[in-house]
Amino acid sequence: MIRHVVMFTWKPEATEEQREAVAAGLAELPGAIPQIRRYEYGPGMNPGNKDFVLVADFAGPEDFVVYRDHPAHRAFIERCVEPIAEDLARAQYRLPG
Amino acid sequence: MIRHVVMFTWKPEATEEQREAVAAGLAELPGAIPQIRRYEYGPGMNPGNKDFVLVADFAGPEDFVVYRDHPAHRAFIERCVEPIAEDLARAQYRLPG
Repeated sequence: MIRHVVMFTWKPEATEEQREAVAAGLAELPGAIPQIRRYEYGPGMNPGNKDFVLVADFAGPEDFVVYRDHPAHRAFIERCVEPIAEDLARAQYRLPG
Repeated sequence: MIRHVVMFTWKPEATEEQREAVAAGLAELPGAIPQIRRYEYGPGMNPGNKDFVLVADFAGPEDFVVYRDHPAHRAFIERCVEPIAEDLARAQYRLPG
């Protein structure tokens, strides 16, 4: 299993409506991209840390690449995330077992 | 359930031995801190992204604080992580369900 982790901060100009559109858009992706095994995301709880986190699990690196390059995922990032996210941190790692 | 996520980059001067001591130190913590429910960590797979990731789950915010402030955890961070980690990103979020 491969885990993909993304965290970012909201830009100061991000509206509440735009922030909600990120969670709403993420909720659609597992239905569109069957390679997603687990998909757990939400707003950060502690000021001074990152504002939003996504943890996504895949059967293997190939499935992660299908997800990464999937048109539904790319469109979501361009439309909902890039306009209001900054200081984005990401990594992929192999889950034990 | 509360999830705590940390990612960082190795400093250029980090040795292989020091990097391995991070994973070895993390392996000890669930035995020392029973508040840890799940603890999944490893080196990042893709250059240009973060070099190391930890995802830790707790029953609630109080358990996370016990972990965060636990002497075994603080000693591990001071001894093993701070000397060789930079660009650290972290967040906590509430898992659904």
